[in-house]
Amino acid sequence: MSLVRVHNFSVSLDGFATGEGQSLESPFGHAGERLHRWAFQTRTFQHMHGNAAAGGTGVDDAVAGTWANGIGAEIMGRNKFGPQRGPWQDHEWNGWWGPNPPFHTPVFVLTHHSRPPVEMEGGTTFHFLEATPKEALRLAREAAGGLDVRIGGGPTVVRDFLAADLIDHLHIVVVPIILGRGERLWDGLEALEKRFTIESVTTPSGVTHMTFTRSAASTSDA
Amino acid sequence: MSLVRVHNFSVSLDGFATGEGQSLESPFGHAGERLHRWAFQTRTFQHMHGNAAAGGTGVDDAVAGTWANGIGAEIMGRNKFGPQRGPWQDHEWNGWWGPNPPFHTPVFVLTHHSRPPVEMEGGTTFHFLEATPKEALRLAREAAGGLDVRIGGGPTVVRDFLAADLIDHLHIVVVPIILGRGERLWDGLEALEKRFTIESVTTPSGVTHMTFTRSAASTSDA
Repeated sequence: MSLVRVHNFSVSLDGFATGEGQSLESPFGHAGERLHRWAFQTRTFQHMHGNAAAGGTGVDDAVAGTWANGIGAEIMGRNKFGPQRGPWQDHEWNGWWGPNPPFHTPVFVLTHHSRPPVEMEGGTTFHFLEATPKEALRLAREAAGGLDVRIGGGPTVVRDFLAADLIDHLHIVVVPIILGRGERLWDGLEALEKRFTIESVTTPSGVTHMTFTRSAASTSDA
Repeated sequence: MSLVRVHNFSVSLDGFATGEGQSLESPFGHAGERLHRWAFQTRTFQHMHGNAAAGGTGVDDAVAGTWANGIGAEIMGRNKFGPQRGPWQDHEWNGWWGPNPPFHTPVFVLTHHSRPPVEMEGGTTFHFLEATPKEALRLAREAAGGLDVRIGGGPTVVRDFLAADLIDHLHIVVVPIILGRGERLWDGLEALEKRFTIESVTTPSGVTHMTFTRSAASTSDA
């Protein structure tokens, strides 16, 4: 059974999953690194960026490290892919991640502006498409060959997939900061908790991991 | 040193501390009992309402039970006191708590509409006043006789006291529900965390207790 999963998705206490004012220098706007510091400190993250020996191996790392297991494709929003808006101007831009992105699968970037696919090193290919969550998921499932599909964010994309009831596993990380402005995750999702079984655990870094697991026998694998 | 404290203040994952549509039947509007179920299950709460033998004695109870220790006065908003708005019509209304309210101290109710004080059984006296947070705190401190002052809510009052930097200890309880509407706690409090040391712990009931302790040597006791 192929699941649709969200991992390591950090939100502030006031519900913002990214700050205001994204730019090339500030992928998360005024939030800076504050939402993701817990993740940067893990071995999973350090390893992903070539520092094989660095990073903690505690509970934060154990939870963070499940993000790639059994994933066959990712769907992400255009703002996760880069800071450009409107028609593509800079065709040299291939994401924040350098020549060998950490995905190593097909990645479907949702955008209103078409662009040819880009094949990167290490098995990542970026496909650009305009599609509803359901259509995008159908394509990603085909590409995933029976493996799971990850919804990579940003907040608008995660929210849209939750609203369409297409998420089976949602891992969010509540970070005890008040961002005040940016993009909210929870808007329009009243009573979301009724569709999930929720577990929470606080770790010594100060964050709270919450897993939302689809409760019903039904899944998104229709 | 007299501290200003907030206790057992529940917020939803999307930051609402009460629901929409308060009424006599629904003190927390459409949120119902969902924000406070964790508290109702504690011995502290059951004891407060005359059920001396009932309720759990786990970590939720230990944390909840600190609310009355060393408190000499409370400040609350009018919406915590009751569902009436505008000039007082029903002078028989003396709060939700019956003839012997659980406060047993002077209680200052912030309202734009004057009303004589009301002396209840058990040491609770309700005083009604229009005042800034700072002025209200000065009066409450006088009445508290050197003990601490509790800011009892609702969300608007807690937010106003936080914005005025008058809180020394803030205990909030993040409940994993998405309320979607109601009164938000965190609005206008960007970067609040910089003024506090924060600890978090999740309990088996599924909630996360967070204590915000004023970091600086300075206190609200000016």
